Amino acid sequence: MKWKTKITKVEPNHLITRGYRQEDLIGNIPFSHVVYLLLKGELPTKEHGKMMDAILTACIDHGVTPPSSMASRIVASGEVPLPTAVAAGILSIGDSHGGAIEKGAKFSQDGIKRMKDENMNIQKTAETLVSESREKKKRVLGFGHRVHTSDPRTKKLFKLSDELNISGDHIDLSKNIEKELETKIGKKLPINVDGAIAAIISDMNFDWRLGKAFFLLGRVAGLTAHVYEEQTTEKPMRKMATVSCSYTGPAERDLPQRYQHKDNMEE
Amino acid sequence: MKWKTKITKVEPNHLITRGYRQEDLIGNIPFSHVVYLLLKGELPTKEHGKMMDAILTACIDHGVTPPSSMASRIVASGEVPLPTAVAAGILSIGDSHGGAIEKGAKFSQDGIKRMKDENMNIQKTAETLVSESREKKKRVLGFGHRVHTSDPRTKKLFKLSDELNISGDHIDLSKNIEKELETKIGKKLPINVDGAIAAIISDMNFDWRLGKAFFLLGRVAGLTAHVYEEQTTEKPMRKMATVSCSYTGPAERDLPQRYQHKDNMEE
Amino acid sequence: MKWKTKITKVEPNHLITRGYRQEDLIGNIPFSHVVYLLLKGELPTKEHGKMMDAILTACIDHGVTPPSSMASRIVASGEVPLPTAVAAGILSIGDSHGGAIEKGAKFSQDGIKRMKDENMNIQKTAETLVSESREKKKRVLGFGHRVHTSDPRTKKLFKLSDELNISGDHIDLSKNIEKELETKIGKKLPINVDGAIAAIISDMNFDWRLGKAFFLLGRVAGLTAHVYEEQTTEKPMRKMATVSCSYTGPAERDLPQRYQHKDNMEE
Amino acid sequence: MKWKTKITKVEPNHLITRGYRQEDLIGNIPFSHVVYLLLKGELPTKEHGKMMDAILTACIDHGVTPPSSMASRIVASGEVPLPTAVAAGILSIGDSHGGAIEKGAKFSQDGIKRMKDENMNIQKTAETLVSESREKKKRVLGFGHRVHTSDPRTKKLFKLSDELNISGDHIDLSKNIEKELETKIGKKLPINVDGAIAAIISDMNFDWRLGKAFFLLGRVAGLTAHVYEEQTTEKPMRKMATVSCSYTGPAERDLPQRYQHKDNMEE
Repeated sequence: MKWKTKITKVEPNHLITRGYRQEDLIGNIPFSHVVYLLLKGELPTKEHGKMMDAILTACIDHGVTPPSSMASRIVASGEVPLPTAVAAGILSIGDSHGGAIEKGAKFSQDGIKRMKDENMNIQKTAETLVSESREKKKRVLGFGHRVHTSDPRTKKLFKLSDELNISGDHIDLSKNIEKELETKIGKKLPINVDGAIAAIISDMNFDWRLGKAFFLLGRVAGLTAHVYEEQTTEKPMRKMATVSCSYTGPAERDLPQRYQHKDNMEE
Repeated sequence: MKWKTKITKVEPNHLITRGYRQEDLIGNIPFSHVVYLLLKGELPTKEHGKMMDAILTACIDHGVTPPSSMASRIVASGEVPLPTAVAAGILSIGDSHGGAIEKGAKFSQDGIKRMKDENMNIQKTAETLVSESREKKKRVLGFGHRVHTSDPRTKKLFKLSDELNISGDHIDLSKNIEKELETKIGKKLPINVDGAIAAIISDMNFDWRLGKAFFLLGRVAGLTAHVYEEQTTEKPMRKMATVSCSYTGPAERDLPQRYQHKDNMEE
Repeated sequence: MKWKTKITKVEPNHLITRGYRQEDLIGNIPFSHVVYLLLKGELPTKEHGKMMDAILTACIDHGVTPPSSMASRIVASGEVPLPTAVAAGILSIGDSHGGAIEKGAKFSQDGIKRMKDENMNIQKTAETLVSESREKKKRVLGFGHRVHTSDPRTKKLFKLSDELNISGDHIDLSKNIEKELETKIGKKLPINVDGAIAAIISDMNFDWRLGKAFFLLGRVAGLTAHVYEEQTTEKPMRKMATVSCSYTGPAERDLPQRYQHKDNMEE
Repeated sequence: MKWKTKITKVEPNHLITRGYRQEDLIGNIPFSHVVYLLLKGELPTKEHGKMMDAILTACIDHGVTPPSSMASRIVASGEVPLPTAVAAGILSIGDSHGGAIEKGAKFSQDGIKRMKDENMNIQKTAETLVSESREKKKRVLGFGHRVHTSDPRTKKLFKLSDELNISGDHIDLSKNIEKELETKIGKKLPINVDGAIAAIISDMNFDWRLGKAFFLLGRVAGLTAHVYEEQTTEKPMRKMATVSCSYTGPAERDLPQRYQHKDNMEE
């Protein structure tokens, strides 16, 4: 069985990751830049390095209510090892939790490609994409938030991407889509943190298929803190949530006739 | 790399599990007996087969509130594949959720072994175990339940184990411990469903290390139903639980001086 | 927070699942029929009950090589609790492992619906579907197997579905597709076990979105046996697989100049 | 249901983590220092910040063979979402994979506490601990490695902990244990990377219960790269490992008599 990998070469007393000796990376390259190296294959420029670091920090935590933190804390309460509970939270990262980064980045990258192919300008592209989405009754992902109307993380990320000269067509497109949505819907649906990250990683030339990875790599820090807090300050199997549940299934009933008169489980 | 396995032999058009051709098992041996075969290595007697089936059914579901169903439904709400969400629920099966079967079976099996080694009777063994646990301030697992005072599953399982002549020393010991606990604590702590299963599988001569497996193999059916219900009747990312959370960390503060005046993230 | 569930009603000393008291189900209804009840909402007819049981048994195990057993055994070797390792195997059940049941069932159910809408016969439907798939260069899922040319599980399942009068349009369609594929490709691509289950559950009127659930609910028994075998007969962290891996990344190199001369990780 | 958390306060347009506004953390505090903040509750000193960063980088990847990378890549090959496959790798972080950090840190912290309680010096403590472990036939964890005799990561981490004035009693104890083991066993068992991290985080005053967290938080970056590489460069369900498996279960046999003559699965 012959595998190929571009990630790490392992020999006795010799570990090479993406070409670099691990002992050179350790203590010389900030961890967030090493993460970039792992995902992209090359170390970041100074600007990309700072942006990468900022994106990871923007994803660290959103309190106890998102599916990932809830899942991690609930699983921790069953009394399992820390990594098992952290992994449970990661499992919830799906198309609706963190998934807008992936889908948003794809939408944006496809949009910019099409803009170039069809020789449109950004504004026209935004109009076209919004109107097509509305026709198909599909939400444009990455706009609006259930808690925040002006998310401080989004503002900070865009401020940085401007300062670092990273902002390009994809961020521009997002801002035009935001305006277009406001015009068409008559209501402000501000770019949310997922949408901002989707646009920024697209301007950093990342594959949209890595969309969920950024969220995961930042959020895993918060999940670890939640599991540790649950394990060290709460009792296992504590009552965690008030869920008033109404049973809407069939009313109480006897077993069907056919199961009642025989030795039903004859081998 | 040479592995050994006693479970299944795979050859083209020929699948042998624990010695039996899979096409012979399919449709001839009830699935619950096949599960027994997988765990024990041999098909069950008629009595063990019925008991096995009853144990699995006794574990199927306990509504939406246990950690496993909550975790599965919450993870499902992130919009992930069905198996991912089912697995998240299984991750919560730990020392405090389903774990009393494993620990209870170990406690019971160690107890009966000791009874024989030290030539005690059951009643004396129960007294000794309870008094030692109380000295070490350790709970005897498998007694008492947060919802049920007289669990219908427990009664049915014990009724069956009597009818099927499975009840032996381990069940006897559990009943004696229940009495002893009532005498010592002055309050009835009835054997719960985990405790009943722990005693029964011990009388069926199962290794206590399989304790969580019985719970898992029954509960996975309920978890699958919950995930499917969540995916087909609810919206992703719905607000699932009322958790009023108070933040008890440090008050809002500025970054420390040392982070404020430099270009902090120089490569 | 108001949840609705049709699965189980939990009250003190009273557990109702799909309308039935759990103490009535335990010991009276075979576990596989209870699984059917959980997924479908109603107990099976005698014929459906037998078929359901056979399907679960047909999924139990395929030795150590499928992704699910490998993942479970490898994770077990890290020394984690049994449920954690079983869950790891379940995570691998995806579009390519067990997924042909889901996709195959959707393909079949869409096909039969279209046959009725467009007033075609089965043979014409098979021709249309195969030729359209070939045009789109998409594989028709559920045909061919990497090990078996005449899978004993498939034959047994179809024999039972005939005997139990379950075989209907969906199975008929599968057999016509098999013939059509042979004609068009000039090579026999026999219906595999996933394809057989996809067709049978469609004739049993199950939602295709439950496709992976059948595989999961049977396979979890085998995974549990594998984890238990690994934990009780092998050492943790044993060398498990011969993977000869060639590193194809960048050649060994020094850190870029810009990282070499400063205190790189200034706060 | 009232939860308490010291981690993050969530209000509309206002996110406070451990007291700091997230928009202040983003872009100003290196991500690895933010991880420290999440785990410890306070931002690191300059020295702790650098050490934390170095530890995370020291854990990033060890090629395709460790259980975590194998599990992630195998699960990825079933065609599941990236986070599901990354989580599968995390599940394998257990008592034998990454676990030596947790156990080693506990051993070290207990050792230093006892040294102070019993008024011993470091050398005497090392002798006592090694001789007691040998009596109980327990391995002292964190020494020796299956691939490396002189692990470049370990050397670099200790060099940094010296330069940063972090090295204290726990590291000193590890070095004394290494010498003591060599004397007693007559063979060099060098401190491995897990053992080094265990000693360093103990000198940084981290709770040993966070031992696996450091490994997890670094390794998750490598796992993400492996899953992405598998998903983008390999076909699903490729043959991944050569496992020559010998079946050692019962020889092929017929079903027992009692299953052969009846309608075995009567409802």
